[in-house]
Amino acid sequence: MRTKDKTVAPFTKLETVAGNGLLHRRLFLAAGAAAVGGNGLSLFAARPAGAKTLTVPTWTRTMGAPPSAYGAPSNYESAVQRIVRPGAAGAPGTGGSWTPLELINGTITPAGLHFERHHNGVPEIDPAQHRVVIHGKVRRSLSFTVESLLRYPTISRIQFLECSGNSFRGWAREAVQQSAGSIHGLLSCSEWTGVPLSILLDEAGVELGATWVLAESADSAAFSRSVPLHKAMDDAMIALWQNGERIRPEQGYPMRLFLPGFEGSMNVKWLRRLQVNDRPTMTRDETSKYSDLMPDGKAKLFTFTMGVKSLITSPSHGFRMRGPGFYEVSGLAWSGAGKIRRVDVSADGGRTWGEAALSDPILPKALTRFRMAWKWDGNPAILKSRAIDETGEMQPSRDELIARCGEHSGYHFNGIQPWKINAAGEVTNVHA
Amino acid sequence: MRTKDKTVAPFTKLETVAGNGLLHRRLFLAAGAAAVGGNGLSLFAARPAGAKTLTVPTWTRTMGAPPSAYGAPSNYESAVQRIVRPGAAGAPGTGGSWTPLELINGTITPAGLHFERHHNGVPEIDPAQHRVVIHGKVRRSLSFTVESLLRYPTISRIQFLECSGNSFRGWAREAVQQSAGSIHGLLSCSEWTGVPLSILLDEAGVELGATWVLAESADSAAFSRSVPLHKAMDDAMIALWQNGERIRPEQGYPMRLFLPGFEGSMNVKWLRRLQVNDRPTMTRDETSKYSDLMPDGKAKLFTFTMGVKSLITSPSHGFRMRGPGFYEVSGLAWSGAGKIRRVDVSADGGRTWGEAALSDPILPKALTRFRMAWKWDGNPAILKSRAIDETGEMQPSRDELIARCGEHSGYHFNGIQPWKINAAGEVTNVHA
Repeated sequence: MRTKDKTVAPFTKLETVAGNGLLHRRLFLAAGAAAVGGNGLSLFAARPAGAKTLTVPTWTRTMGAPPSAYGAPSNYESAVQRIVRPGAAGAPGTGGSWTPLELINGTITPAGLHFERHHNGVPEIDPAQHRVVIHGKVRRSLSFTVESLLRYPTISRIQFLECSGNSFRGWAREAVQQSAGSIHGLLSCSEWTGVPLSILLDEAGVELGATWVLAESADSAAFSRSVPLHKAMDDAMIALWQNGERIRPEQGYPMRLFLPGFEGSMNVKWLRRLQVNDRPTMTRDETSKYSDLMPDGKAKLFTFTMGVKSLITSPSHGFRMRGPGFYEVSGLAWSGAGKIRRVDVSADGGRTWGEAALSDPILPKALTRFRMAWKWDGNPAILKSRAIDETGEMQPSRDELIARCGEHSGYHFNGIQPWKINAAGEVTNVHA
Repeated sequence: MRTKDKTVAPFTKLETVAGNGLLHRRLFLAAGAAAVGGNGLSLFAARPAGAKTLTVPTWTRTMGAPPSAYGAPSNYESAVQRIVRPGAAGAPGTGGSWTPLELINGTITPAGLHFERHHNGVPEIDPAQHRVVIHGKVRRSLSFTVESLLRYPTISRIQFLECSGNSFRGWAREAVQQSAGSIHGLLSCSEWTGVPLSILLDEAGVELGATWVLAESADSAAFSRSVPLHKAMDDAMIALWQNGERIRPEQGYPMRLFLPGFEGSMNVKWLRRLQVNDRPTMTRDETSKYSDLMPDGKAKLFTFTMGVKSLITSPSHGFRMRGPGFYEVSGLAWSGAGKIRRVDVSADGGRTWGEAALSDPILPKALTRFRMAWKWDGNPAILKSRAIDETGEMQPSRDELIARCGEHSGYHFNGIQPWKINAAGEVTNVHA
């Protein structure tokens, strides 16, 4: 028996929408879900259940553990960790850690796996002592404690955060053989809750002629970046919560600046002060670092908005295909400019493309999960994805990106990521 | 300087929309945010920043900690824990833990704080040995391992889970003096990712005449519930991921049934088998438990869909007001029947109501955060919220609920929660 108002899309009847076995996204879109088999043919992985299938394992015969104050993942999932790359000896805090994108699913990053990038380690800040000050070109300088910020109106938004150095290995001439997370995992997505910065700036009273705000951190890197006042008055917030709970130490406890869609480092953690100015400050962190070296030898400053981008997380480097048959091609798409409008997937190295299914809700400046059905025939293949955002911008190929920016930027790599599958089913990274 | 295309809604100009100081929701709705002060008058909590404000604390003078494999909350947040209530001596696993709703914000519940309700503790299941079987009125019985389920198409959705026994203290004649989380915290919201159940049932081939599916758990409670086939074929999934990572042990690792909007216990954890039947099984867990005692002495079976409901989390029991002035009234609304259409807030015990701002995205069968600006005059007041869902259903008062269901149900309490504020600013629970 089936409910009658359902679109039925048997897997066997799904039409091919692009070369090399890409199937229509209807499989993921029908209300509820689509029918797949139905003709006595297991297209996937089920096995007949024999008489001995329902054995009684140990855990069905013994009492389990009582409820606990704060949970943790199963011990069987202990390999799901951030990819830690501490800095040089003597300065381990100058490193970072990458989110293992190929080991998680959906779009929300659990806080324990949110990427890190520090310039002198994670400070342990006493929230009762911490202050953030607004000063400079304002009618009156103001100082806020955590407690006082908790008295302001708050907003919540699900949005991504991406380091501008994410995917920097894409600039290298040789394709690096690392996992999706190792290459692209300076990328996470959380529900952020905090106080709209515009309310605080209005209270301080921004003076005529002010155009920039310097944001500085309270850790011992005193990291500082110049933020256009327009952004500070638009959708910026001082974030105090991350995925429901207070923001984690590695993400700026007790508070960070959050600038939706802007490169990660501008979202200053452990926020200490905001100085309203009539010009950018040209700090060390926005001149010698976080600037893009162009082909003419000049450095391009202030590339704020993260470009439209996508990434196939499954299958990806290190995966081993189990032989010909059905696969779900799954990945993430995002843009600092707004919502994702469409994601295309290719299974023939970019000659033909089919449209992937996007998982609701599709939110501005947030990760969007895409999924595509693929019937792999067992022959070598190259998988690619490309995202198009609501402004019409399309993710470039690596060649197009290098033609525009040269190959020495080191930041802002948003080129297409191809994964090659050989006849043995091994998945590797290629420039293609 | 302000950007020009912004709706400016100075706090001082916000009109009153209901009695006792409730202000227009525009404060939370303007693109970016609304202006608040602007006339040299701090309506909130900022202090003038003096010359000594920017002192240099210890953590700005010392190197911080290096990146880590898996993060944890700040040590200063160690009080943010689940409210643990283990079961009787000898059966601690028959208890549960409540999400501390008043200590978190936004809508996503971090997995570490997701509520628990167990019937014989949390089993430690080896995913390599676990199987789920589909059998009964199907053309062929099928057995699935975790690995085999990972080969199926997946979907992701942000949705709430609520125990049908949540808020059971609302049935008591005396208002219990406990925190919002202690009373209402058998409620959490996550991004769930898994395999649509309809795909698996289609593959097994449901026989004509089948109408129910029995779901049974692999823990030593062998918890089992009957699920209408219509729901199983609609938006049900076998969930494998929770907020990005694999589902936590307390929430059913390695897999649970997820039935959006249905009472928590039907979302069988540690799912072991699904038996397709032509009738409900009338198990212990749906007859002696999880049934509602009606005024006529009969037990009402099979109340599946959780009713429309809301709860003010701030201010709530145990909060202490800081004196007259601006407050953000913040809370959660949800309905098992779909999206939240509107939330009203009253500051005069329900005589007048004003419409709260709802935080995007408003998703079906998910928690929705509402916020309302309130200027408290320092006099005693009673705060209430009531939610209306997209089907037009409105959350009842406690009196209305009892008039309909009597006072002995023990489950499915979705009455309005009033919080009383006295002249000293203390917040308590009342039936009002």
